[in-house]
Amino acid sequence: MRVMGIDPGLTRCGVGVVDGRPGAPGTMVAVGVVRTDPEAPLAERLLALDDGLRAFLDEHQPEAVAVERVFSQHNVASVIGTAQASGIALLAGARLGLPTATYTPSEVKSAVCGNGTADKRQVTTMVTRILRLKEAPKPADAADALAIAICHLWRGGVKARISAALNNSAAGNKESAR
Amino acid sequence: MRVMGIDPGLTRCGVGVVDGRPGAPGTMVAVGVVRTDPEAPLAERLLALDDGLRAFLDEHQPEAVAVERVFSQHNVASVIGTAQASGIALLAGARLGLPTATYTPSEVKSAVCGNGTADKRQVTTMVTRILRLKEAPKPADAADALAIAICHLWRGGVKARISAALNNSAAGNKESAR
Repeated sequence: MRVMGIDPGLTRCGVGVVDGRPGAPGTMVAVGVVRTDPEAPLAERLLALDDGLRAFLDEHQPEAVAVERVFSQHNVASVIGTAQASGIALLAGARLGLPTATYTPSEVKSAVCGNGTADKRQVTTMVTRILRLKEAPKPADAADALAIAICHLWRGGVKARISAALNNSAAGNKESAR
Repeated sequence: MRVMGIDPGLTRCGVGVVDGRPGAPGTMVAVGVVRTDPEAPLAERLLALDDGLRAFLDEHQPEAVAVERVFSQHNVASVIGTAQASGIALLAGARLGLPTATYTPSEVKSAVCGNGTADKRQVTTMVTRILRLKEAPKPADAADALAIAICHLWRGGVKARISAALNNSAAGNKESAR
């Protein structure tokens, strides 16, 4: 399965595309950063971000999109922009009919480092190792995006099965309540 | 000029379209609320919101879009969703090549009530009076969206002229620095 991971941001939005499956190391298909001009009006920046993400989706045709979840505990000054970028990212995936998923930073760190409180350097090191890259992906937003894609490949299957089981169980409960 | 005002929200997004010009009362063209299912996955909700806003834009063909600015001081639990909705709203306008503007809640209240700390009831009362409506628009999100459109019609011209003057002055400074 091919997954596009997105580390949402308005100034730098990390994008990483990985081919893989649960339990296997995975292969990097593409990595990059969509940048928008901090001096430009907000609507222009959102449009530039949407254009950049669509170009990645068009070129690499992922089967799923995974986006890091935004928390209000984050830096208060940047949380609004990060939330807006994550909305654009999820919309871009949904607009193409792709399944989308969100993961918390600690879920992503746990998946690639085995430790939910790992720092950015550890994440970059593990992503470089897991994908057998010759060089560490730069900047950190790009490495994070690859980590999110790996997280989805390794954990997404499990999450999807749990969610399907819960839906079936809920459907069964509704059925028996009739 | 025809303006579409948007009071961004993920569960209820207010939309109001007003024809008018600075100094004149203005005429309501349309008002409504785009609702999304709080139980649905986030990406589906963003897509439903985008579809709903695009339908309004298509039907009423505004010449500008005005969106209430989101602050992190707002209710922390809902700020992420509100920010995502505002990003979708600004993108929808920008995607059509329309000029977009954002206004703080106090700018909107000052414009329609003459008081930046007016409450929701006062905003609804003044919107109903300014647009000579037979009934108050409901819910409050719909009235707020009309207030944002009125704010843009009344203040937008001034803001645009100041911004153009600043740009000209900045261009002049660059020119003389060469």
